[in-house]
Amino acid sequence: MASQGGPLVDLAVDKDGIAVLTMNRAPVNSLNLELLQEISKSLDEVAKNKTKAMILTSASPTVFSAGLDIMEMYKPDLKRAEQFWTTLQDVWLKLFGSNFITAAAINGHAPAGGCLLSMSCEYRAMVSGKYAIGLNETALGIIAPTWFMDTMCHTIPIRQAEYALTTAKMFSVEEALKVGLIDEAAADKADAIEKCKQFIRKFDKIPPLARAITKQKIRQAPLARLQKNRQQDIEEFLGILKNPLIQQGLEKYIQALKQKAAK
Amino acid sequence: MASQGGPLVDLAVDKDGIAVLTMNRAPVNSLNLELLQEISKSLDEVAKNKTKAMILTSASPTVFSAGLDIMEMYKPDLKRAEQFWTTLQDVWLKLFGSNFITAAAINGHAPAGGCLLSMSCEYRAMVSGKYAIGLNETALGIIAPTWFMDTMCHTIPIRQAEYALTTAKMFSVEEALKVGLIDEAAADKADAIEKCKQFIRKFDKIPPLARAITKQKIRQAPLARLQKNRQQDIEEFLGILKNPLIQQGLEKYIQALKQKAAK
Amino acid sequence: MASQGGPLVDLAVDKDGIAVLTMNRAPVNSLNLELLQEISKSLDEVAKNKTKAMILTSASPTVFSAGLDIMEMYKPDLKRAEQFWTTLQDVWLKLFGSNFITAAAINGHAPAGGCLLSMSCEYRAMVSGKYAIGLNETALGIIAPTWFMDTMCHTIPIRQAEYALTTAKMFSVEEALKVGLIDEAAADKADAIEKCKQFIRKFDKIPPLARAITKQKIRQAPLARLQKNRQQDIEEFLGILKNPLIQQGLEKYIQALKQKAAK
Repeated sequence: MASQGGPLVDLAVDKDGIAVLTMNRAPVNSLNLELLQEISKSLDEVAKNKTKAMILTSASPTVFSAGLDIMEMYKPDLKRAEQFWTTLQDVWLKLFGSNFITAAAINGHAPAGGCLLSMSCEYRAMVSGKYAIGLNETALGIIAPTWFMDTMCHTIPIRQAEYALTTAKMFSVEEALKVGLIDEAAADKADAIEKCKQFIRKFDKIPPLARAITKQKIRQAPLARLQKNRQQDIEEFLGILKNPLIQQGLEKYIQALKQKAAK
Repeated sequence: MASQGGPLVDLAVDKDGIAVLTMNRAPVNSLNLELLQEISKSLDEVAKNKTKAMILTSASPTVFSAGLDIMEMYKPDLKRAEQFWTTLQDVWLKLFGSNFITAAAINGHAPAGGCLLSMSCEYRAMVSGKYAIGLNETALGIIAPTWFMDTMCHTIPIRQAEYALTTAKMFSVEEALKVGLIDEAAADKADAIEKCKQFIRKFDKIPPLARAITKQKIRQAPLARLQKNRQQDIEEFLGILKNPLIQQGLEKYIQALKQKAAK
Repeated sequence: MASQGGPLVDLAVDKDGIAVLTMNRAPVNSLNLELLQEISKSLDEVAKNKTKAMILTSASPTVFSAGLDIMEMYKPDLKRAEQFWTTLQDVWLKLFGSNFITAAAINGHAPAGGCLLSMSCEYRAMVSGKYAIGLNETALGIIAPTWFMDTMCHTIPIRQAEYALTTAKMFSVEEALKVGLIDEAAADKADAIEKCKQFIRKFDKIPPLARAITKQKIRQAPLARLQKNRQQDIEEFLGILKNPLIQQGLEKYIQALKQKAAK
């Protein structure tokens, strides 16, 4: 989970005028402060350049994103932890409320924060296979904040969201498709990206300003809720980190990961 | 789209004590100020007479209602535009929050405002064929107001509503049935009206006051939201009309309609 | 509907450490003040003992619970009626917002308040057969309060909830399964309880505190709404009881029940 030397994201605009934002923090795109900062900057750039659409994907062959980097939460420097959470809020506000069209080409596992990023887009194509997606925070003894829940309830019915959140359910591609957590299954990464483009092409004749305002209006309630409660949300997060029970849970989890890696 | 000489609506109570409100502004029931005023008055009359139920339908053989009359929005007299929007708000508040049972016999196309009127009823039967239904405002560069969105989210899941609203999706009868935008497909207008009556008969043994209050309670949040924000909603509408980009979009659309009509 | 001599509920913790709360007010578990008080006390005990989970079921072979006892509403002592409603609020707040896992083994009919209790749990298995479930208050001329509606909208889509509430729909097991009002059909009471246990076992590896807070967070809006409006909700209930039309409706209903019993 150490930082890599290369760039943490790749942002390229293809021949169709669509931005492809590829997360590239080996090995599993754990969302640490630096990766989130790069994603945040990329979202600004897509907006500034008035690019019509953005596809979010991963450079890893098996993982879309493993979610928030546990090392940002385990025995944290509280000042950095605050910056970390603020940046995550920024990323979500920019992504969930973007002017431009957003689609996720989910080419591998997408637990927790990985699931959140994909659900914040307007469309999800996921590569079939052994991959799973879900908000599984409770399995680690952590509580998904209200805006994670709001994002899930914007995607699937509240009954299914409650079940998924409390049981830490990781959905197979088939299960995700059935409940509406993803929109389409894809054969591979290229196919997932092509399906994202098919979604994006649906807007070819729609005036972009009307589209953007319509999207932001229907997403208004969750956006406004976080904007209004940003400081309180940060304090809740820091409060959780200070809880010894939470820290013990994280320690156990990290040790289990190390043992697994050592095999 | 010029006004016709005859009455703009027909309101008749049939042998079962059910009011049938037929929109009758040839050729396509474009909702202009005068038609909305007649609908509003008819809703008052149904309420005043304590008629138990009302079926909303169209005199046109192919169109339920083409939605808001663009001529009310193109180069508008702002005073009339304000009256127009206020009347539309009135119609929705009366229809969505009515004491009496409401059902729509959708006997033709129902885009935009036509879709809104039908979704404001408690039940929808739609004639099978080439007809389509949906809130397609973004296709014209216009933004559906929050209460249009609330009405759609009261009918279909928010995920589907976002997709439909941003892509300006017009649903076929089969698609509308699958997503829940309509309740039943009908063979023709008579069958649609008969299906509406079957729905209305479900309430034969239900005390009307308990029924009415229950309906209004579960529709309370969207009703209260518009009641609280009526003035702001009017100003938003007038602001949109004053936007040169919107006016250019409407001009284009009107020219395209004229060319089509000339063929 | 007279009170019985024996205990009104049975609360036992089984070998798996799961509490089973059995309603036992013959013949049909009508929820009167005393039964609600016993349920409320039992919920406190399960919470106090930190029991991980509770299954709610009935001692009757054919009825889960017939709902609120009409005799608490017909020609009521207003002081007792206030205590009755306050206790019902307490039961709901404790059950819908509990720390422990909740599941309902619905082994018979579950109209009105019986449906409410089961929907307040996190999972429902219902015995197949001739039994029915639903919020059928309007059939008696009564209006389900907002928090009954909120509980139903937490379980099934709002479109289906409006239809069910206004038509007083009693769902067969197959219909309830299809719309999501119950989670699984069971062969008999033992099977329903076993299915509840299968649901409870899904949490074996989930840290209980994170689970509890996650559940309470996603149930926060309806919980907060009643907590904020408890007094107003009581006054609305008492206002309904004072309405002569409501009392006439209840009298008719009671006479019909007596005639049925006399046959």
